[in-house]
Parts: sequence; C-alpha cells; structure tokens
Amino acid sequence: MATNGLEGVVAASTTLSLVDGERGELIIGGFAIDDLAEHATFEETTWLLWHGDLPSPAQLDAFRADLASQRDLPVSTIALLEDCARHDVEPMDALRMAAGTLSLVSDDATAIVARIPTIVAAYSRLQQGQPVVPPSPELGHAANFIYMLSGQVPDAARVRGLETYLNTVIDHGLNASTFTARVITSTGSDLVSAVVGALGALKGPLHGGAPGPALDMVFEIGSASRAEAVLRGKIEAGEKLMGFGHRIYKVRDPRADVLARAAERLFTGAADRSLYELARSVEAEALKLLEEYKPGRRLQTNVEFYTALLLHGLGFDVELFTPTFAIGRVSGWIAHAFEQRRANRIIRPQSEYVGPRGRQWPVH
Amino acid sequence: MATNGLEGVVAASTTLSLVDGERGELIIGGFAIDDLAEHATFEETTWLLWHGDLPSPAQLDAFRADLASQRDLPVSTIALLEDCARHDVEPMDALRMAAGTLSLVSDDATAIVARIPTIVAAYSRLQQGQPVVPPSPELGHAANFIYMLSGQVPDAARVRGLETYLNTVIDHGLNASTFTARVITSTGSDLVSAVVGALGALKGPLHGGAPGPALDMVFEIGSASRAEAVLRGKIEAGEKLMGFGHRIYKVRDPRADVLARAAERLFTGAADRSLYELARSVEAEALKLLEEYKPGRRLQTNVEFYTALLLHGLGFDVELFTPTFAIGRVSGWIAHAFEQRRANRIIRPQSEYVGPRGRQWPVH
Repeated sequence: MATNGLEGVVAASTTLSLVDGERGELIIGGFAIDDLAEHATFEETTWLLWHGDLPSPAQLDAFRADLASQRDLPVSTIALLEDCARHDVEPMDALRMAAGTLSLVSDDATAIVARIPTIVAAYSRLQQGQPVVPPSPELGHAANFIYMLSGQVPDAARVRGLETYLNTVIDHGLNASTFTARVITSTGSDLVSAVVGALGALKGPLHGGAPGPALDMVFEIGSASRAEAVLRGKIEAGEKLMGFGHRIYKVRDPRADVLARAAERLFTGAADRSLYELARSVEAEALKLLEEYKPGRRLQTNVEFYTALLLHGLGFDVELFTPTFAIGRVSGWIAHAFEQRRANRIIRPQSEYVGPRGRQWPVH
Repeated sequence: MATNGLEGVVAASTTLSLVDGERGELIIGGFAIDDLAEHATFEETTWLLWHGDLPSPAQLDAFRADLASQRDLPVSTIALLEDCARHDVEPMDALRMAAGTLSLVSDDATAIVARIPTIVAAYSRLQQGQPVVPPSPELGHAANFIYMLSGQVPDAARVRGLETYLNTVIDHGLNASTFTARVITSTGSDLVSAVVGALGALKGPLHGGAPGPALDMVFEIGSASRAEAVLRGKIEAGEKLMGFGHRIYKVRDPRADVLARAAERLFTGAADRSLYELARSVEAEALKLLEEYKPGRRLQTNVEFYTALLLHGLGFDVELFTPTFAIGRVSGWIAHAFEQRRANRIIRPQSEYVGPRGRQWPVH
C-alpha cells in the first residue's frame, strides 16, 4: 500500500531542526526556537545551520561582508522581473523564475541567500510601478531587505522584528519544500536547482500559501464582538479556519508565541495595537469554538496566524508574505542540501502500479 | 532509523507505468514498452498517459494541432537563452531557467510540452552561434525538434528513431525527477513549478546525467580488440562502468533492447555501422567482466548505454542527451502531477533529529 503523503516515514537524519509536535517544541541547531529567534541576527542563524555552531566575531563579520557584497542582480534577472511585472505574474512565480537565473552568476550558497531578498524587493517595487532600490552594503541582511522595499533605513525595532521572523521560519524538519530541495540535491544537482524546486513547492497553498488568508479573516471579523458569530458561521459552513491546525503540531505551534511577542513589540501605534488585540480575541474565540465543534482534533494556532500579524506590523503587503517566508527558509533549504550531500543516496521511492496490463498496439 | 533514499518505500499508487526490476519489464499505460515505443508517435504516448487511453483519430489531430500552435517562445525567454549562451551556461541549467519563464505565457500542460523542445533547440543553436530556427507547425512534435536543431526537415527513419526514444523514456515509476514533480504538486502548486523542479533533479549526474559518459567510454575504447584491456583497467582502478547497473533493474533494462534496435535501424552508413558493432562488442565484454569481477551483483546494461548510441545516430551532440531526455520525460512528469492532484495529500515525510540539544544563547 502506498504511504499517502509519506506521513510518519523517516526520510532523513538531520542535525538542523527538531520538530516535536506532541510537546510543541522546535529546536534549531541545538537552540530552543524562542531563545534563538529573539537573539540572533539572520546571518548568525544561517551560519549556525550551515556550520553547526555559532560564528566567531571574525567569522560573522566576514560572512556579513560576503553576503552584503553579493546582493546585486544580473541585468537579465532585472529584465525578466520587469517582464513579469508587465504580465502581472504572481510574486512567488516571479521569485522562482528570477531565482532560477542566478545560475548566470554563481551557484554558491552565500550568493543565493544574498540575492533572494533583492529579487523579492525589486519585484515588489516593480509591481507598484516604483523604481528598484539598489541594496545598501552597509546594512545587515534583514535591514537591507526592508530598505530595498521602502527606500528607508528601518529603525532597530523593525529590524529586530524581521530578524525574529526570518529566524523562526529558517528550518522546520522535512516540510515539502525542504524535502524537495533534498530530493533534487540527491541526484547530484546544484544548489540553484534545489532552491528553485523548493520555491515551487513553497508556493503551493497547502505549504507556504496561507498567511494571507489568516489575516484576511481577522480583518473580515473587524471587531472582537463579531468574532464568535463570524467564526461559528465559517465552521458551520464547513470552512477551514485559516491559521489553525497543523499536520504535526498537536499542541500550540511554538513559533506562534515567538511571533506573537515580536508582533506585540512592534505594534506600538494605537491602530496597530487594536489590530493586535483583535487578533488575540479572534484566536481565543477560534480555539474555544474549534474545541466545541471538533473535540479531540486538537486544532491549535499555527505559525501562519501570527506571521500575518507580524509581517503586517512590519508594513508588508499580503503579497509579500510567502516570498518573505522564502527569504528565511532558503538558508534552511541550503543547509539541508549540504547535509544531503554529506551522506548522499539518491531519493527514489517505489510506486505501486494499479493500471491496466496486456494492452496491445492496434494493427492498422 | 531513516530510510536512506526511501528505497523500497511505496510513495504513490499509479496507473502510469510499472517498473518490474526483477522481471525486466516496463509497462507504460498498459502497453509493454517495446510494443508502444516502436509504434506510437510521441503525441499518442503523451495522450495515453494524460487520459488513460489512446486518442481517437479526431482527438489526436486536435492534440497535434494544439501542440503545434503553442511552440513559440516568449521574447524574454529567447533573451534569457541568449544571455545563457553568452555566459556559457550548461544546457540543463539553461533549459531549467527558460522553462521557468513559461509562467509568462501559460501554465497549461500542452503549452509546456509544446515549448520544451523549442527551448532545447534554440539554446543548442545559440550555443553554436547559429540563428534560432522557428518551429514548423506542419511537423509533428519529434520531427519539429530535429528540424529546429538542424534547419532540415528530417526523413521518416530519423523521426521514427526519435519518437521511439521519447516514448521509451516518457515515464519510469517514481524516479527522482518524477517524485520531485509529485512533491511540488502535492502542495497545490502549478505545473511549471513542478516541471522546473523536475528539470533540476534530472540534471543531477546520478539521475539523467550519464548517457554522455557511456558513449565517451565506447569512443575511448575505439576498437573491439581493445575492449577487454580498457574495461579491465577501469574495473581494476575502481571506476564505475557508465551505462551498466541500475538500482531497480537486476536483469537487462527492457529499454536497452528497444533503443538498441532503434539505433541499429538508423545506423545504415559504414562509419555508424562500425560504431554500432563496436558498442555491441563493448557491451558483451563489459557484461562478461562485470560478472567476473562482481559476481552476483547482477550489473546489466541500462538505458543510458543505448540512449547514447541512438542519439548519436540521430546526429545529436552529447550536450543534447539529457535535455532530449527531458523532452520525453516532461509528459510523464505532468501525467504524475495530474495523478497526484486527483488524490492529493501533501508529501511531507519525517526526519530524525540527531543534532545537539540544550544550547543557550550566550549572554553578552
């Protein structure tokens, strides 16, 4: 019998992350996610996954400088993004296409991680009819991304918010995009191929595509007093509540709290503050109703709910949510590619044939 | 324990192909491979995989016309290929990049299959500094590919040779590229994303990358009298003999005979004829020596050995071998994507964490 979705099949040993769905625990490179995500810069977390330990100050300086020096895009990548904007291509498709062209410059891991934010920011600007903002080599990876999006050097709180988000999503076991990267790498292929395949998987609404709808739901509800009625209506109509439930986590997704705290720190203005309070109310009501309607299903708040809130707090449009996820996850994909290469065997499962047999070509 | 390479794990049920490695049997859509490959056009085999049965004459006419009408590439795809040629990008990377840009025009299955040969042929011409040959809507899928490569309408024997090759490689269970396409599709992503991921996997030397070296070995040997000495030297030096051995087939790969016969029919000139005879001698000697040096390993001729010979007979450079494989396999990738969608569950295996725990962020 086919193992549908390979659920429960152990396909790799890893030193990168531990996802414990029963205990609600996520370890990244030996650190609990809340400890790591709130303290590290994205450069440090990337280094940790690629090298197994935190960088020394000298290593970190060199790595930051290396990343910062490789942010510019090839001319034909920009031309392709301009064409994508003319055709109104979805941001994740544009990112996948443009990331594919990085083979024109380098298949080096640092070169890829350096340029993914440049692609995302350039396309966001082009879609809005604004000039592309060239990267600033003085800024760190997260700060530079916000700068390229807005043209403004961000304050420390916003940079910290984005670092926390990127660290939180950098790796998460053998999710479908990471597994895609490992399957491609297992054939002996290159890093750009692995990343492009992973981007194609991340685009799928069952994987990286849900943070937008989770926020839409909060906006649709609009005020805490309406939460119960709207949510009951959705559940009774058979709709899935976006931002709740996860195949692996049967308790609260440990990333939800990290992101909720990061969002709360950012939401200092009155309008933002009320959105934050509303989201908290919606979450509490949703959890109560899910337990009432689907007892025992253990549907808990997942990473997407507070991702939406945090990225909204950073001023990012919904269209940027999945591409920003990719900016974080790409370091994890590459870490898995390295790990796959160190003990490689081509990933080639079996299929079970249930089709016809004994057909013969018709004699004409 | 991790199941290294997912060997023996059944990851999907399929009606598309049966690979029986113990019996040396390959069934495609209910037909034995030798029956199907030698009779069908590639349009018919593609239709068979996508619809479960052969097309009626009217369906076939409409499908041919639909394919033929969608061969032109977007302007920016051509521009990207020109840039790839300037940077001397490998053909499989150029194909992956250019295939990614097909999201600019259509995510339709027919549109993708129609344009992959145009990309391969255009890049081959550009790499040789020759003008791109526009597709000819009067020609079938296989004939048009040879036409776009050479600028010459091919004779029936060459077209039949290529149809046979494309049919032979159109599908083969859950190989790494097909599995990649299914993992990407399982997230709810689109066909271009699935095909681009699969192209990245096919590029890997452990998957689609070996037909070139198999032919190189035959050329290196040069004459039948040298076969034994050269092959003994390679085996004793610990080299793998390219074109022999397969993870699944423990008897002769059923595709080898189909391709050998197709090659033999093509090799009518004296020089070609002697290459064909040489390859036969090398094969016989290799099988004898593999049994002598590695008794019980059951290393048999695989598809790559005669792929190389057949494609060489068609006048294709070694650089074209893996891209031409992709022209055939893309219909299988898409058939698997359709099949995955019909009974979808996201493909997300588990990993086993063997990394550190209990690290704490250093207090600065």
